[in-house]
Amino acid sequence: MKRIVIVMAMGAEAAPVLERLGAVARASPPSLSFGWYMAERSGCEVVVAVNGRDPRHGVDKIGTQPAALNTYLALEQHRPDLVITAGTAGGWARAGGRIGDVYLSETHFVYHDRRIAIPGYDSYGVGSYPAVRADALARALGLRQGIVTTGNSLDETDDDRRMIAASGASVKDMEAAAVAWVAELLDVPILAVKAITDLVDAHADTVAQFEANLAMASDRLCEALVAVIDWCAPRSVADLGGLS
Amino acid sequence: MKRIVIVMAMGAEAAPVLERLGAVARASPPSLSFGWYMAERSGCEVVVAVNGRDPRHGVDKIGTQPAALNTYLALEQHRPDLVITAGTAGGWARAGGRIGDVYLSETHFVYHDRRIAIPGYDSYGVGSYPAVRADALARALGLRQGIVTTGNSLDETDDDRRMIAASGASVKDMEAAAVAWVAELLDVPILAVKAITDLVDAHADTVAQFEANLAMASDRLCEALVAVIDWCAPRSVADLGGLS
Repeated sequence: MKRIVIVMAMGAEAAPVLERLGAVARASPPSLSFGWYMAERSGCEVVVAVNGRDPRHGVDKIGTQPAALNTYLALEQHRPDLVITAGTAGGWARAGGRIGDVYLSETHFVYHDRRIAIPGYDSYGVGSYPAVRADALARALGLRQGIVTTGNSLDETDDDRRMIAASGASVKDMEAAAVAWVAELLDVPILAVKAITDLVDAHADTVAQFEANLAMASDRLCEALVAVIDWCAPRSVADLGGLS
Repeated sequence: MKRIVIVMAMGAEAAPVLERLGAVARASPPSLSFGWYMAERSGCEVVVAVNGRDPRHGVDKIGTQPAALNTYLALEQHRPDLVITAGTAGGWARAGGRIGDVYLSETHFVYHDRRIAIPGYDSYGVGSYPAVRADALARALGLRQGIVTTGNSLDETDDDRRMIAASGASVKDMEAAAVAWVAELLDVPILAVKAITDLVDAHADTVAQFEANLAMASDRLCEALVAVIDWCAPRSVADLGGLS
């Protein structure tokens, strides 16, 4: 493939991979404070589109609204062969998750915080946007696969738990489904690469786990992302699933 | 003012106002199935940007992700003097709300479903995007004013209730804060015009109320929107607040 766009939410998540790729800043759309970077790796052009800092609150623009907008503008401008939603995420001990594990997406992306109990709108709320088949990639790199579920809060409420139990998701983040929604609309295959910072069903507090493990998980994410790029660059999208 | 953009989520909400304005369809960005319409009213150009139907689920693209993207593209292309987030919404009997009431926004827009318990991220999650001052407009048209709070679910959970009690909001919708986020970034003054379909704290089911009252509330919304346009068209944005 010729070009990959990687969409990331937080500066701390992106820093190791930007440094490792030797990525350089390039122009991004005005007024939105996104951070766009470009690198060459294994003969493939890699664009890293980071959501950037909120000018008023001074924190990274996590969540689905910036993710949707950043993804749309990056995909429209760069028309990649593949988009990767990359970042840290929560996992569940009950699903065999461990802190530092790196997951690839599996089958589809869902939301767990769009509850709309009207026929038709209920399934629209969940989304179920398709993920690219990546079985061969997962086997080659020894990475786990799981359904990624997205919501705009860091915690997990009882309502979230019900939605997540219904979807069978094993990775919980705050952006992926929004990235996947745009990717489906623009017909770009999408893969998630997510490193686990916290176990949602652990006794420890999610915020404390997240803060303690963010740097380590971002390093694990960086290693996995570079390996994914190196594996994908000389191959086609169909090769990720091992279909050809 | 020369141009107003009105962002709306549902076809049923938009239909009466599109007919009343004699609005005609115009080109919108490819692949996104937004519906963009244009009309002249009181010497002002009015662009109505409707989120449109989801091609897979066959329902209107309600919620914050389509709202953010539709708003960004409509504001970038049309550079209006004012953007209006218009639609139906929930109210609360405890705040004096009645079905069919039309509210204008007041002071700011918040989210009630972005709970991020990390310092800095907590206030980012709530958002608090500024609304244009509209006291003079509200007085002139006899409309109520209230803080609008946004979430991606139709119901109201205990967690939502806590967030809403903290913000003091009196109007609950599924798009406004996302529209206001983009409006702040692009420096376009924003006003909400919202007609109440259901009382969140009523004994009756929210879905049943919504479905029973959608057509009536959309008609009330249409009347109010046309009155707002007619009042605003010969005036400046500062006039809405009665400051000049």
